[in-house]
Parts: sequence; structure tokens; C-alpha cells
Amino acid sequence: MTAAYEQLCARFARLANLNGAAAMLHWDAAAMMPVGGAAARAEQLATLSLLAHEMLCHDELAELLHRAEASRAGLGPWEQANLREMRRKWSHATAVPGELVAAFSRAGSVCEMVWRTAREDDDFATLRPYLEEVVVLVRETATAKAEAFGCPPYDALLSQYEPGLSAADIDQNFDVLAGFLPDLLDQVLAHQATPPAAPERMAVAVQEDLSRHLLGALGFDFEHGRLDVSLHPFTGGVADDVRLTTRYDAADPLGSLYPALHEGGHGMYERGLPSAWRLQPVGQAMGMAMHESQSLLIEMQVCRGDAFLRYLAPLLDTLGGVSGPAWEVDGLTRRVRHVARSLIRVEADEVTYPLHIIHRYRLERALLAGDLEVADLPAAWRLGMAELLGVAVPNDRDGCMQDIHWMDGAFGYFPTYTLGAMAAAQVYGAAEAALPGLSDDIAQGAFGRLMAWLGQTIHSQGRLHASADDLLRAVTGRPLDGGIFRQHLENRYLAG
Amino acid sequence: MTAAYEQLCARFARLANLNGAAAMLHWDAAAMMPVGGAAARAEQLATLSLLAHEMLCHDELAELLHRAEASRAGLGPWEQANLREMRRKWSHATAVPGELVAAFSRAGSVCEMVWRTAREDDDFATLRPYLEEVVVLVRETATAKAEAFGCPPYDALLSQYEPGLSAADIDQNFDVLAGFLPDLLDQVLAHQATPPAAPERMAVAVQEDLSRHLLGALGFDFEHGRLDVSLHPFTGGVADDVRLTTRYDAADPLGSLYPALHEGGHGMYERGLPSAWRLQPVGQAMGMAMHESQSLLIEMQVCRGDAFLRYLAPLLDTLGGVSGPAWEVDGLTRRVRHVARSLIRVEADEVTYPLHIIHRYRLERALLAGDLEVADLPAAWRLGMAELLGVAVPNDRDGCMQDIHWMDGAFGYFPTYTLGAMAAAQVYGAAEAALPGLSDDIAQGAFGRLMAWLGQTIHSQGRLHASADDLLRAVTGRPLDGGIFRQHLENRYLAG
Repeated sequence: MTAAYEQLCARFARLANLNGAAAMLHWDAAAMMPVGGAAARAEQLATLSLLAHEMLCHDELAELLHRAEASRAGLGPWEQANLREMRRKWSHATAVPGELVAAFSRAGSVCEMVWRTAREDDDFATLRPYLEEVVVLVRETATAKAEAFGCPPYDALLSQYEPGLSAADIDQNFDVLAGFLPDLLDQVLAHQATPPAAPERMAVAVQEDLSRHLLGALGFDFEHGRLDVSLHPFTGGVADDVRLTTRYDAADPLGSLYPALHEGGHGMYERGLPSAWRLQPVGQAMGMAMHESQSLLIEMQVCRGDAFLRYLAPLLDTLGGVSGPAWEVDGLTRRVRHVARSLIRVEADEVTYPLHIIHRYRLERALLAGDLEVADLPAAWRLGMAELLGVAVPNDRDGCMQDIHWMDGAFGYFPTYTLGAMAAAQVYGAAEAALPGLSDDIAQGAFGRLMAWLGQTIHSQGRLHASADDLLRAVTGRPLDGGIFRQHLENRYLAG
Repeated sequence: MTAAYEQLCARFARLANLNGAAAMLHWDAAAMMPVGGAAARAEQLATLSLLAHEMLCHDELAELLHRAEASRAGLGPWEQANLREMRRKWSHATAVPGELVAAFSRAGSVCEMVWRTAREDDDFATLRPYLEEVVVLVRETATAKAEAFGCPPYDALLSQYEPGLSAADIDQNFDVLAGFLPDLLDQVLAHQATPPAAPERMAVAVQEDLSRHLLGALGFDFEHGRLDVSLHPFTGGVADDVRLTTRYDAADPLGSLYPALHEGGHGMYERGLPSAWRLQPVGQAMGMAMHESQSLLIEMQVCRGDAFLRYLAPLLDTLGGVSGPAWEVDGLTRRVRHVARSLIRVEADEVTYPLHIIHRYRLERALLAGDLEVADLPAAWRLGMAELLGVAVPNDRDGCMQDIHWMDGAFGYFPTYTLGAMAAAQVYGAAEAALPGLSDDIAQGAFGRLMAWLGQTIHSQGRLHASADDLLRAVTGRPLDGGIFRQHLENRYLAG
């Protein structure tokens, strides 16, 4: 252990505490904050993020990194990985001038604020100049990072969310998906049975209890976490205090339950990160694709699977107080696996979801490269939706204005959703191979062996591996393989 | 306006945002955080407070203060007051070495943690070494600040909570109270009627609605605030996002309502602070005594007064769904004004409360001066309670271990409770004089004129005045006058 390395650890612990404070405030803003608190909160968050940026860009930190790297050989594997991740954070922070960071953050906040109303009003014209400003600053940021890292601009953005991922990797995977999904979708639509009629209501308080019961059964630790309500479900907080959210509608109990289970998958990843490395970069989750793999493994692989539905159906009766064909195994199965050509990404099923993502991926690459301008986005959106999903887009509200991501500057994020879905199928296959009798466990509501295996192979590994692909190889024996995801979809939606 | 002054404003705005973030996290810790989040939260808060301390102690800040003060004459009255408050904050931060600040903060956190269990177990022996450590560090802090400010050590502690307040001022006021309160208490106990029998229960959800209704009627703005639950009611957050808490017990509806009203008084002060000075030192509340005057003006002067009870009684029926003698004006009056010799400060009525405070004031001065050691605190506590309140203390849990304040190092805070009670009576007298027909307003649930007057005379003044006493003179025409408080108690508890 070198003195320089230890000093770096102290600085990064301070940075992690600052970021942890900001994470709690972000959660509060979405789950608790009264509407009038928004301006004050934006100032608080901007201050915390500026302080974090200043800490990372401090001259002494660069000097310490150099010294620690020079004596890297004396460090163990976790320490070396930690140092690698410190350097990565430093690279991202210093690649961009402070004024650009501040301008980008401000433009994103303003655009997001304008978007909330403009979307309601289906008013792209009002949004346009704000989104144009964001795109200009995204291009500048990507260019600055690309120069610093010696990679293409889009790859520089990707690496913010997923270290080591390149557009070439994505193209390879998405081309495979785009190749078979449209046909598969046609087949599924022809093959699937009509879902049962809209079922009876379930009181929100009962839905809450049921969500908590199921999260508890999965192993979510309410001594170190909460479940609350927000407009869009998400997972926030820090590893020792994980904040999940969902949303409730008495007419749609599964519409609160499945998002809660999805967030529970994210939450258990956070909670299972290596506690010995809690405040260090190597103690963080691998990347957004692996994170999404853990939420989708729970939501899609486990909780929409046959075994889980056999466990769930009687609970809906005893805890949820609902009964009838719609709530029995057959009816439930048809409902939680209903596939449809849809306009809205967040409501899409697992067959069509990747097509929504491929659509966005193509558009954001074109926007970044300057091959598409914001003014032409609505038309390009319509075209892509018709081509990929066979859907006619009736307005911009449910078209190119539906997502928050681009509004606050998150370009390069969308692909991780679908890479996560693919990884989820692959990891779950490995879990089934490693844990004989797993589906019997699940049918009895016994999730302990699965969660322990995920904890050991993925959660507790933090960022020890250099990339999500390395971690995936370690867990499943091979790189990301779209064939496994295809097999999963065909087994679930075309067999039987 | 000088360049130095403007740079100071930018730095203090950043500091205010950092402190605002910490305030939200403190609220979350008390109202939302799962128990397992405590350690991570302590680290986040310690980091924010260390950063704030570093900002205040930065060499450039001292230099800017010098330069701004040199051209003070060019500034307006608010700017000059702002500069005075900046200097005050700087003085407090720099008077104490960073290591002492950190050691004190850590000792307070640890002692408070030990106290939570030790109090439950009535185990003073376990607490003792931790409290001794806190007292050692309080003495060091007071000595360091006393040297820097050229004042006695206890006054240096007082000035953390109440600028300009000295022990001599407190002695003068408390001697008056100690002179008449014990006799007055005897008379009240002989005079008062028995309160009606324990009334029927009110569901917690109904109590919540009722609390929100009354806070709304008083003018609390739920677009900029919330009401939640915590073990001890308090007001947190920031001026644009005020977080009130209370606690509910179905068997004791008034036990949630009156704390909510009390916190509402604090909350409306925060919300009414001058928005043009939001992130500046001069835009903060005057001090803790004036803050307590606003909560007690609402809770004690208004809400336990005849007019309010005439407004409240029918609401308890229509909104609260309770009726019968205990909920009618006479019964209510006897209950909300019931006086008793009590062991516990936070449950004390307004006649005995000052005696609890005088008791603590004497003990904390003796502890600071070294005239009393922690080991002898339990005995000294029993003696004082017998002397001042005529109460026999059965154990340390309900004796010297009942309050959190000393445990986390808040010495010099207790007196502000009673100075606030005195100021509340005085300010309310001035309001009655300024607003003819005020009690008719209140009997009809019309609080607008009163709150507008408080907003104009007190809330919107921030820290424009140099001390709470200056502000009180501006509002009421005279310095703090214990005779007014005495008159209030005699009118309310001995007349009729």
C-alpha cells in the first residue's frame, strides 16, 4: 500500500459521500419534495456537483494518481482495480472544461423543465431551441472527451455509463436483434392468446403491502431501504440506504407490482456491492447494462416466468384479496406476457422493447454526428417507428418527446437497457445451470439460493473487472450472446 | 457595491446551498431514513460540514472580508448587515481549530448514539465517559471562542444560537422568573379545575387531515412544505421547502395537533424570511429565541387561547368526528391548559416549562465552569428538580438523561426556549394592540392579518437587526420584559 494510494482513497471517500448526499437529494426531489422546492433543490444539487467536479480536477489529485500508478505493482488486485477506476473518473472530469460542465448541466435542467410542459401540450416547437442547445453541448462534450480518450465521440459518451463499450459492439448486437425481432414479433402476435378482461381493482394500500411482501421474499432489506412513490419508478439512494419507488393505480395492480420488482433487482445489486469498498470507485456497480441486467433478471426472467406465477397467483388471493380467472395462473401468464406494437417505450413488453431502443440508438448517433438536426427529429421518429415497429405515431407527445433522457443530456444511455435485457437472459441461464431445482425454489417463493449466487458472482464483485463483458465472461463463460436472448423470447412467446 | 462584497455573496450562497443540502439530509434522517442508513448518513453529513468549515476558513475569504469591510460605507443597510453576519460566521468557524471541530462533532455523534440505548436502560454509568468527553470538548470550544471573541466562555456558546446574548441578560430574566414561578405554580394548581376524562380516540389518518387543515388555515404553504412523522417533532428543510414533523397517537389527538401547530409557527418564520436574501447570512432567522417565539406565539398564545378554542371545537366535530364534553370549548380549554408538576421538559405546560429550563441553565453553566462534574450530574439534577419544581426524580432516564441536547454538544441552547416564550407573549401583545379585533378573527379561523403582521415585522426582517433584542424593540417598542410573560400566565391560569 503506498501513501499516495491511501491519500487517494481518502479523497475518493469524501467524493463518494458528496455524491451519496446528492443521490439522496435526487431521490427526495422525485419522491418527497413539494413542487415549490424545485428551484432551491436545483441550486443545492448544482453546488454539490460543482464541488465534486472541483475535487476531481484538483492538481494534487492528478499528482497522487501519477505517484500511485508508478508503484502500482505493490497493490493487490482490488486496489489496482480501484486505482484504474479512480483514473477513469479523473479522465471524465478533466476531459471537459468546468464552464462546459456547468453550461451542460444548466441547459439540461432548463430543457427538462420546458419539456415537462411542452410534452403535456404536444408542443415540439417550444421545446426545440432548448433541445438544440442541449445537443450542441452534448456534441462539444463528446468531442472533448473523444480527444482526451482517443476514441470516437459516441464511444466517449457510452463510456460514461458503460466502461469499455463501443458503438461497434452495439452495432454487432443490435444488428442481430433488428434482424430477427420484427419477424418474431409478427409470429408472437399471430400466436398469442387474448388476455383476460380487465380484472377487479385492488386498493392502493393492499398493493403496497403486497409489493413489500414480495420484495421482502426476494431478499430486499427494509432495514437498509424503503419503497415509496414517484411518477417514474426508479432506484436511488446509496448501498446502505436503498430507495426504491413505484407508482400505484387501483385499477392496475400489476402495474405497480412489476415496477417494484424491477427496482428491487436494481436495489439488491446496490445493497450487495462489496461493503469493504463502500466509498471507493471499485465498490460501485459495474455499469448501467449490468445494473439493468439485474433488474430485468428479477422482473423478466424470474417474475414473468412460470414458476413465479405459480407462487404469485395464490398470494394475490390471500394477500391481495382478488380472485377469478384473471388472477389465476393461466390468466396471469397471458397478462404479464402480453405482447403488442406500442408507442411508448416504458410500457413496452420484452419483445418490442429492444426495437424502441434500437430506434433511439440510431437517432442519437445521427444527432451526435450532425447527420440529423433537432428540427428533423419528429419526422425521423415517425419514420423509424413505422419501419421498426410498424406503428404510426399520432403526435410528438407520444413520439419523440416521450422520454426524459435526451432532455437532460443523457446521450449514450439508451443502449444499456437492451444490452441489460440480453445479459439478463444469459446470466439467468447460467444461474439455472449452477442451481439445479431453481424453478422449484421459485415456485415456493424461496429466492435465497438465486440471490446468494447473484450476490457472490455479480453484486459483490463491484468493478473488480475492467468491463461488463469481462464480468459476464467470468459469470457465464462467454461474451454477450444475442442468441441466448433470442432463445429466451422464442421459448417464452412461441412455444406451447 | 464592491467587488469584494459581491465575491463574498457568491461564496456564502455556495455555503448556504451546502448547508441547505445538509438540512434536507437531517430531516430525512429523522423522518424517512431506515435504521440501517445511519452510519452512511453520518459520513455524508460529516463531509458536508467539513466542506462548509473549509470554505469559511479559506484564506481568500478572510481577505475578501477585510476588503469589503474597508469599503463598507458604500453599502446599503441590508448589505452592511449581511457583511456583519458574514464576519460573525467567519469568527465562529475560525475561532476553533479544525481538529477540535471534527473531534467535537464525532464525540457528539458517538455520545448521542450511546445515549439512545443507555437512556432506555436507565444506565448513566455507561453514558458517563462519553458525556465526559463531550463536556471536555465543549469546554475547549468555549475557551477557544471566548479568547477569540473576548467574552466569557458561556457567552461564546450562547452566541452560536443567539447573537449578542449574554449570561448576564439571562440571569436578569431568569431571576425574575425563578422569583415568582414557584408561587404562581402553587396558586395555579390550587385554582385549576380537573380536566375531563380521557376522551375517545381519533384515527391517525383523521388527525393528519386535521393537522393539515389547521396548518393550511394558519397560512402554511404546502406547495413549499410537507408535514411528516418523526420521534420528536421538529422543523427542518430550507425556506422554500419547509419540512414539519409531528407524531401521532390515536389515543391522544391533541398530542399530535399542538406539536404540528408549534412547528407550523417555526415553519412560517422560515418561509417568510426575505426571499431577496435567500442564500445570504442576513436572510436567515434572527436566532433561536426569536424562532421559538414564533412557534410559541402560534402554539401557546394563539392556539391555547379562548378564541382559537372556539374555532377548534366545532372542527373537531366536523373534521375530527369526535364529540362530547371533552371536545367542547370548556373541556378543551381545561385540557390544553392543564398544569402539572412534571418530570419531563417536552411534556411540560407553559407554567412549569421555564423552571425546567432554569434548572438546565444552572447545571450547564456549572458543568462548563468546572463547578460540576458529569459524575455528579444525576445528584445535582435530583436536587434542582426538588428545589425548583418540587418533583422527586425516580431515575436518570426521566432525569438528567431525558434530553438529547447535551449529548450532541448543544450547550447554551436551552435558555432560548424560555426567552422565546417570554418574547412570544410580548410580540403577541404588540400584535393585539396593532390589530384591533384580532381575537374575533381567530375565533373565525381567519389568521391572515396576524400572519401578515408577523411576516412584515419579524419574518421578512431576517437578520437585518444586530440582535434579537433590537428586533424585539423595533416590533414591541421595548426590550424583553418578563412582566408581560408573568401577566400572560396570571391572566390565563389564575383569572376566571
